[in-house]
Formats: sequence, C-alpha cells, structure tokens
Amino acid sequence: MKILQIQSRKQVELIDITREVCAAVREQVVAEGLAVVFTPHTTAAVTINENADPDVCHDMVTAINRLVPMQDSYRHMEGNSAAHVKSSLFGASETLIISNGEAQLGTWQGVFFCEFDGPRQRRVHVQVIGR
Amino acid sequence: MKILQIQSRKQVELIDITREVCAAVREQVVAEGLAVVFTPHTTAAVTINENADPDVCHDMVTAINRLVPMQDSYRHMEGNSAAHVKSSLFGASETLIISNGEAQLGTWQGVFFCEFDGPRQRRVHVQVIGR
Amino acid sequence: MKILQIQSRKQVELIDITREVCAAVREQVVAEGLAVVFTPHTTAAVTINENADPDVCHDMVTAINRLVPMQDSYRHMEGNSAAHVKSSLFGASETLIISNGEAQLGTWQGVFFCEFDGPRQRRVHVQVIGR
Repeated sequence: MKILQIQSRKQVELIDITREVCAAVREQVVAEGLAVVFTPHTTAAVTINENADPDVCHDMVTAINRLVPMQDSYRHMEGNSAAHVKSSLFGASETLIISNGEAQLGTWQGVFFCEFDGPRQRRVHVQVIGR
Repeated sequence: MKILQIQSRKQVELIDITREVCAAVREQVVAEGLAVVFTPHTTAAVTINENADPDVCHDMVTAINRLVPMQDSYRHMEGNSAAHVKSSLFGASETLIISNGEAQLGTWQGVFFCEFDGPRQRRVHVQVIGR
Repeated sequence: MKILQIQSRKQVELIDITREVCAAVREQVVAEGLAVVFTPHTTAAVTINENADPDVCHDMVTAINRLVPMQDSYRHMEGNSAAHVKSSLFGASETLIISNGEAQLGTWQGVFFCEFDGPRQRRVHVQVIGR
C-alpha cells in the first residue's frame, strides 16, 4: 500500500491527484487488476471527474456547498457536520481498473482528493492488486 | 477487461445493463472474486438499484434532476455542469462480489448505466479478478 | 464470502458494523488485498464515516432526509422511492484496503450499514481477496 501526502489550502476544494495515483499504479507492475484510492479521513472524499476545465471543479464545489449547507440545525459540536455528509455523498474511495499495466481512465477523467473541512494535512492510500 | 457499448436515448436516463455485466462475469470463470463496472465518462455514472418496477428509475431521475438543477449559476461553458455533479454523487463505478462463480446481486438489484448528458454513444468497462 | 445479519430498528438509521467487518477480514488471513462490504438491498446502503460521536450519524440522517424528502410526487407505488434514491447516493458498497493483515481504516472511521426503509431484517456481504 502506498501513502500519498496532500496539503489542502481551502475549506472546500478538489485537488487533482491523477498523476500521483497513476505513478503508484505503475510502480506495482500489475498487468490486469484493480487500484483502490482510499482516504482515511471522515471529512474528505475521493472522486473521479473532469480535470481539463477547472470551472468543472468550481461548479462541483458550489453545487455540493448548496446541497449541504455549512450551517444548519446540526448537533455535532465540532461544527463540521456538513463535511461529514459530503464525505458520505462522494465516498471515501474510488476503484480504478488496471488493464495492460495502466489505470484505465477516460480521456477527460482525473482522480480528485475532495477536501471538505480544510485546510489540513491529509493522506490518501493506494492499494493495487492483480496479476 | 471487457468493454460494453451503450447508446443512450435521453438526456438523463438509467439503462439496465445487468444482463451484460453478469455475462461478462461468467466469461471469466472466476469462483471467488470481484467485478468492477466502471464508466470512463465524466457526465455519466454506474449505480445499483431496483430493476423490477420502472417507476423506481423514473423517481430517481426526477429526484436527481431536482437536487442538481440543469440551470444554475454554473461557470463551465459547455452547459453540462449538472451532469458532472450528478456523476460524482452517483459515482463512476460499482464493485460486485463474485461468489460461487456468479455476481452476488440481491433479488431486486440491477446494475444501471446512468446517462446525465445524453443522448450519446457510451462505454462501460468490466474488470474481473479473483481465483 | 461472509454474510452478516443486521436487524434495523428505525425507518432511517446508520448501524455501526465496523467490528463485524474487521473480524470477517481477519478470518481470511490476507496480508495485502481488498475487502468489499456490499448490501444486496435496494433501499439500504453502506458508508464510511465517523463512529466516535453519535451526533455525526444523527446529523447525517437529518441531512439525507432533508435532501430526499419521504413524500414527493413519486410514482413508485410502494411509497419508498426516497429510500431508493438515498441508496444510490450513498452506494451499495464500500471497498476497504487490507494491508499488513488488517483493514486500513482511519482513526475516526467506522463502516455503517445505512437503513433507509426499516425496520427490517437485512444482510451485508463481505468478500476478501488478496495474497
């Protein structure tokens, strides 16, 4: 298992980790298999989306902030309940297919670490299995 | 890795691909393992839900369209930001458990390709690993 | 594949199954691999979130109930369309990374069965692969 270190800069942002994930996959020299990209934090997530136009990330952050407001009648005393909800909606991990020795992402797809309660020092785990 | 070809007919729709996915799993002759169903598009998704009553898909499409409106103060110039948001909420892939040589879906579960920016020609990848 | 039996008590609740999932992983004696936690029901889900402060679950239930109202102009005659939508938003499964023989969860992470149409008798499947 490989551990990636990520420093987020904003409270809510999507950080492109495609290059680091694909490098971790290549290191394992697996021809056919799977790679799981997993974050061990409960106020963050991993997602796959377009990494060509940065306006897509901007719109995604705006949309998720509108869906799950920062302030609501939350009980959790730490004040970051919205981040926990966003984490479950986006999910703690993504699974990539490895074929011909490469992670099979689409032309416009990138892998993003989703920060929902930053800025913080964060981690992402990458596990590769296959033959 | 097997590639399924899908032709969507509407802007937003769920297309049942259970039969094709289960056939792709059986072809690999794996007794115990995993099957990952992954779409390489950033305005689409893969989900698991009921495929008995078509009204479930109708209600899911209505609900996701209400949650993420087509028109909002989006920046992305292509006009399909809602589709990108829906893609991350539903997720680019689903992972099925293979046991006794079969994908272990529940009685009412089907695997759906989710079109959020159609109609288009689309693809779904299926990777099987195990023993 | 291991099958966990779960009895939900409320219409909508998150049930902590971390201990049972980690026990199922240890039973398989896999050093490096993956564990998939999958529910075969279409009105339930599996998610990963904080299991230290029970107020986090309370706030997540409140937030998802607000996002997807129980009553709306749904067509599906069983009256549980909201549960189907929630199931696709949270997802039918979570994938855990196994390293050094243990499921690699973060300090605050737990695995939850998400009941969206209870109370009912439910099942969760756990499949472990690796070396």
